[in-house]
Amino acid sequence: MKDVAAAAGVGLKTVSRVVNGESGVTPEMAARVQAAIEALGFRRNDSARLLRTGRTASVALLLEDISDPFSSALSRAVEQVAAAEGCLLFTGSSGEQPHREKELALAFCARRVDGLIVVPAGHDHGYLLPEVESGTPVVFLDRPGSIAADAVLSDNAGGAKAGTAHLIAHGHRRIGFIGDLPTIHTAAERARGYREAMAEAGLPVDEKWIDCGPTDRARVAAAVHRLTTGPDAVTALFTANNRVTLAALHHLPATARPALVGFDDLELADLLTPALTVVAQDPVALGALAARRLFDRLAGEASPPARLEIPTLLIPRGSGETPPGEG
Amino acid sequence: MKDVAAAAGVGLKTVSRVVNGESGVTPEMAARVQAAIEALGFRRNDSARLLRTGRTASVALLLEDISDPFSSALSRAVEQVAAAEGCLLFTGSSGEQPHREKELALAFCARRVDGLIVVPAGHDHGYLLPEVESGTPVVFLDRPGSIAADAVLSDNAGGAKAGTAHLIAHGHRRIGFIGDLPTIHTAAERARGYREAMAEAGLPVDEKWIDCGPTDRARVAAAVHRLTTGPDAVTALFTANNRVTLAALHHLPATARPALVGFDDLELADLLTPALTVVAQDPVALGALAARRLFDRLAGEASPPARLEIPTLLIPRGSGETPPGEG
Repeated sequence: MKDVAAAAGVGLKTVSRVVNGESGVTPEMAARVQAAIEALGFRRNDSARLLRTGRTASVALLLEDISDPFSSALSRAVEQVAAAEGCLLFTGSSGEQPHREKELALAFCARRVDGLIVVPAGHDHGYLLPEVESGTPVVFLDRPGSIAADAVLSDNAGGAKAGTAHLIAHGHRRIGFIGDLPTIHTAAERARGYREAMAEAGLPVDEKWIDCGPTDRARVAAAVHRLTTGPDAVTALFTANNRVTLAALHHLPATARPALVGFDDLELADLLTPALTVVAQDPVALGALAARRLFDRLAGEASPPARLEIPTLLIPRGSGETPPGEG
Repeated sequence: MKDVAAAAGVGLKTVSRVVNGESGVTPEMAARVQAAIEALGFRRNDSARLLRTGRTASVALLLEDISDPFSSALSRAVEQVAAAEGCLLFTGSSGEQPHREKELALAFCARRVDGLIVVPAGHDHGYLLPEVESGTPVVFLDRPGSIAADAVLSDNAGGAKAGTAHLIAHGHRRIGFIGDLPTIHTAAERARGYREAMAEAGLPVDEKWIDCGPTDRARVAAAVHRLTTGPDAVTALFTANNRVTLAALHHLPATARPALVGFDDLELADLLTPALTVVAQDPVALGALAARRLFDRLAGEASPPARLEIPTLLIPRGSGETPPGEG
């Protein structure tokens, strides 16, 4: 701005008035400043905006892995709300590493984002308290955080319960549950939903039927093999997220194939043979609601932090409707 | 920084030395500054960094639609290179709208990103020249831009040629091509590859076999229907991107199913019946190379702008290996 003022032969205050569209500048003066701005390639930048409004018109979205279809759908939904608010979006992936989540979240805050949407990888968000207290709203997405802040979640327990009940309704009594790491909120909630459905149907759960851990192919393949072979084999599987379902589909036994319901929809799920029955989340609704909440907070919404839940949808397509012994 | 200096009872220069880890500060002084920083919640922010180094340690990636699996894989790859460089990443989706591409790109530049990776939606990038001339490197990704700048692309023509030649090698002579809007570089290149393969095999191309347009379900369904019915039906289809392939798979005829090769791999492609033969791009390599190029430019690489090409990979899985009349 100093360079513009010098080039235009006016004072800093005049440049500021022109840039901010304020009155008190003659048309000639404004034209001179405009010409100087164009000549110098000056553009109102973050610093200028920050100094003026205290806001940077940018928000950040911290995901597990943006290349995962669930995460990228969240991202697009957040981006669309942000764009309508004139805000740009930082995105970052924690890779399910708590230290990376913290590092990225603090880096976004240091960059003075106006607000932060976090899919938590860790369980301690005390490090965000100074940010929240200094006026940067935080919304947790997909999983709750450890501090008082809004959280937008799927009805994970309800969805898993509905999926499990669906298998029970088709005659299954021995149902395996293959899930993500039990330290992850969504994984624990989905296991809870599975147990609730079994309990409500009066069915005992053999703890060996529940297999939780990392979602890599090898571990899921081992779980599928263990659960579907031998005299104690289950007749149905509930796979508790998209990575687990994808891996399980690659390792189902060729004969005596168990019935299968997966949590999360997949792009070609309806074209498989049999087509895949899923409990679908609504990532677009989740992302949009989280972003809406963030901008409401920025606009002054002062109600206590809330936990907002989006329902899931059971989509029967074939794989979850085969009775025991007919897979 | 003024507030920190006042609270610590030291000069601005001392605060600056402590923040930047420079020498010439006594441990007591440093501790006082540190305490003041913590008390005030001060953090080195964009403005301070920008004033100091002229860089913001942020880059931007402008995509077609981040929720598309190809785009989100690019995004993750760019993010990983950026993270290794200590840089945060802005992402934005143009939705294939040239005015939105320009609007977003200029907004990122106004935010003083250090560099910009653009998947172009439009064909005129003159608006980026002032940015490039003022030292903000631009790398085009997936499609070339209209100005002299690096471009990282798939071998679109070569991939489509290999996919079409594969169908020809399995006995097909009448091969349909369903593509994206012909104004899109990748779509035009893939159509060129299709024509080259046909020409090299000495096969005539009936212009009615080539159907290009938007990738929505209805249009692709109509194209599939038109190409695969009647006395002049084709015996094989080349579907020229992931959206087209996905839509075509939902509308293939139940009998006399044509052989099919798709450009772009899909997540469950290997589990379909028949499994889907594809020409796979390598979005991770594309994104990583574009980001590498951007940071090399930021580090002073001054060679002329280059067009860098990543090969594609034909993956035969079943749908592209059925001879005519056996689908």
